Amino acid sequence: MTTPDGDERHSRRLGTDESAVRRRSGGGAAGQHTVRRHNLALVLSEVAGPQPLSRAGVAARTGLTRGTVSSLVEELIGAGLVSELAATRGGPGRPASPLQLDPRGPAGLGLEVGVDAVGACVIDLTGAVRAQRTAPSDHREDAPDAGLLRVAALAREVVAEAGLPVAAATVALPGVVSADGVLERAPNLPRWVDVAVGEALRARLGGLPVRPGNEADLAALAERWAGGPPDVVVVSGGIGVGAGVLLDGRLFAGAGGRAGEIGHVVVEPDGRACHCGGRGCLETVAGLEALLRRAGAPDLDALAATHPDAVRAAGRALGIALAGAVHLLDVPAVVLGGAYPRCGPLLLDAVRAELDARVFSRSRVDVRFSTLGPDAALRGAATTVVQEVLADPGALIAGNGAGATELSS
Amino acid sequence: MTTPDGDERHSRRLGTDESAVRRRSGGGAAGQHTVRRHNLALVLSEVAGPQPLSRAGVAARTGLTRGTVSSLVEELIGAGLVSELAATRGGPGRPASPLQLDPRGPAGLGLEVGVDAVGACVIDLTGAVRAQRTAPSDHREDAPDAGLLRVAALAREVVAEAGLPVAAATVALPGVVSADGVLERAPNLPRWVDVAVGEALRARLGGLPVRPGNEADLAALAERWAGGPPDVVVVSGGIGVGAGVLLDGRLFAGAGGRAGEIGHVVVEPDGRACHCGGRGCLETVAGLEALLRRAGAPDLDALAATHPDAVRAAGRALGIALAGAVHLLDVPAVVLGGAYPRCGPLLLDAVRAELDARVFSRSRVDVRFSTLGPDAALRGAATTVVQEVLADPGALIAGNGAGATELSS
Repeated sequence: MTTPDGDERHSRRLGTDESAVRRRSGGGAAGQHTVRRHNLALVLSEVAGPQPLSRAGVAARTGLTRGTVSSLVEELIGAGLVSELAATRGGPGRPASPLQLDPRGPAGLGLEVGVDAVGACVIDLTGAVRAQRTAPSDHREDAPDAGLLRVAALAREVVAEAGLPVAAATVALPGVVSADGVLERAPNLPRWVDVAVGEALRARLGGLPVRPGNEADLAALAERWAGGPPDVVVVSGGIGVGAGVLLDGRLFAGAGGRAGEIGHVVVEPDGRACHCGGRGCLETVAGLEALLRRAGAPDLDALAATHPDAVRAAGRALGIALAGAVHLLDVPAVVLGGAYPRCGPLLLDAVRAELDARVFSRSRVDVRFSTLGPDAALRGAATTVVQEVLADPGALIAGNGAGATELSS
Repeated sequence: MTTPDGDERHSRRLGTDESAVRRRSGGGAAGQHTVRRHNLALVLSEVAGPQPLSRAGVAARTGLTRGTVSSLVEELIGAGLVSELAATRGGPGRPASPLQLDPRGPAGLGLEVGVDAVGACVIDLTGAVRAQRTAPSDHREDAPDAGLLRVAALAREVVAEAGLPVAAATVALPGVVSADGVLERAPNLPRWVDVAVGEALRARLGGLPVRPGNEADLAALAERWAGGPPDVVVVSGGIGVGAGVLLDGRLFAGAGGRAGEIGHVVVEPDGRACHCGGRGCLETVAGLEALLRRAGAPDLDALAATHPDAVRAAGRALGIALAGAVHLLDVPAVVLGGAYPRCGPLLLDAVRAELDARVFSRSRVDVRFSTLGPDAALRGAATTVVQEVLADPGALIAGNGAGATELSS
């Protein structure tokens, strides 16, 4: 698994051996506890690194003593996070047993409630997708309960299929999620107002912790984990249009966690009414439904060939909104994801032309399509859980391990 | 002087007495040096606080010993940063001599090169404006040299008038300033491209350090120092339109330091050509020149009465661009500064109406006029210098004090 902070791994190291660490943090039981938790994460990050390491290798890289490393590794093995492969004799001395992240260990559950679909997937500690299902499910007319019921059912199916314990879940949502995890508003889901989605799903999934996130934000994180640029606006094109903004590899939250709502940047001041209550928002021109309505076409794939004007108009609108985003956020790169790659190079060219004509503060903005496909947010949701386990395995261990292999309803 | 980080003053404290501090930072000479520099700033921040304190009072608030405080205070007095008032007998015991920031100490020089004016001001350590001059100077046709010559001349005048030593200067510029202090581009000054303004002015001001900054960014900092909200877009209305974005009280820089260029957010996709090379930018409708051209009026002050439609159109354009900014940055407040307050409540009402109609992610955006007047950026520029001296007096002392009282040409 590629992690955005792979290069910073060593900044987490606290000291050259455990006694030095203990001294610096005060020496008491609380200090030791914190240091051990920190060192668990340090050892796990070395095991997760690109190079296979034995216990001795981890000791050499971290500066921790071999005894300390062995004790920490035993704890990680006990929690199902790490496994030890058969010993190999590479050179002189004792044979080395390479450590690895345990693919049978606590996995991440990613969920998505889209405007017209639900999805669920399980990603294991190594980053492999172990089960994934999506299903049509239109939530535009319904109260939240129906959609939550469907996504919970799908969650149980993928967890059963994967056969792995699950540490927690993240659910991707097509709207504004507050810092405390409430879906405040989703313009395309008029009946979903101030819905505590995390709590509702937790109750339906046997107490599994479920954290909601904005779908575009999770898609942006997925781009980064797949090796994308650190400073970028990732646009997620669907019935709604959203964006996740990464600055220095981290999600830009703005003042209240709701940043990146590019779908409601105005591109035609006197344009069509938008579901948000405004008028002429980007979404009214470049959202999928708007695009197909304009073309009078039933689906996206042949659109560039049959209705190039509709694709060009969407590209122009995207370029206008993105020019504003570049001027306000000063980002050098744009990734167009969700359904946009299906519109083909005509869309990309139109966006580029508009940015070239309108952005004065940068010599060039790099614009490209996402290669992650339409499930980027779902994958991003599952991966956030895995990343959190890897970043703080002590939290999982302290909580007496992960959720159950089968989720009760 | 109100400082935005007044409440965090105590977070800078390193230890309860100097020997403890020395132990924690390694005990060597380098450690002592760093700690002393840190403690100089700590003592100066206490002296700068709202409550008059004697040496004993500073010792009580910082936890440093009286001996350490006295030694640090002597050094600050020697550098001209602090003065001690006559002793007063308030209660029992030795009379207390209140300490204060020395109004004769190293001051901040603020400079501004606007599109059609230059300005210079000197602000002393207590935050008082000691001299200020502005003069018309149209730079739209000229090469940079002429404007730099004029602002340097004005700088020498205000410094001579103030009669204070100057620690450094900040110069406010109406364009994109790179992280290393080069004015990359100013849409309204076509001949100012990649100008090392800081270096050029330093050479003209006897070697005084001069740092360039974007004028809207400096105006935004001035709002914060005057008690404005921590999360806000501060729009600076002139011939050009810019914005400084504050998040958590700090300037939001974006990925490359050029964030906040709201003047080039598109509000009329097929509108007038903009000096930036784009079309229909906010500046083409709500910039002062555009506003007066539309009204056919020579000046701003009676505009709301004589040409309400022009003011309403500007307000609508501002509201459209700001709706985009709120959706992308998630800020709860907007301050309209520069020349906008002269347009009166009609402008404010139009902006508010547009934001109310278009922003869906927040229940309400607070919009108000700046009360700082047209010199906010100039004052902000001078204040940044004062703030830097207060934050790290040791840097000034190590550099052998401030610049000269009179600047050589």
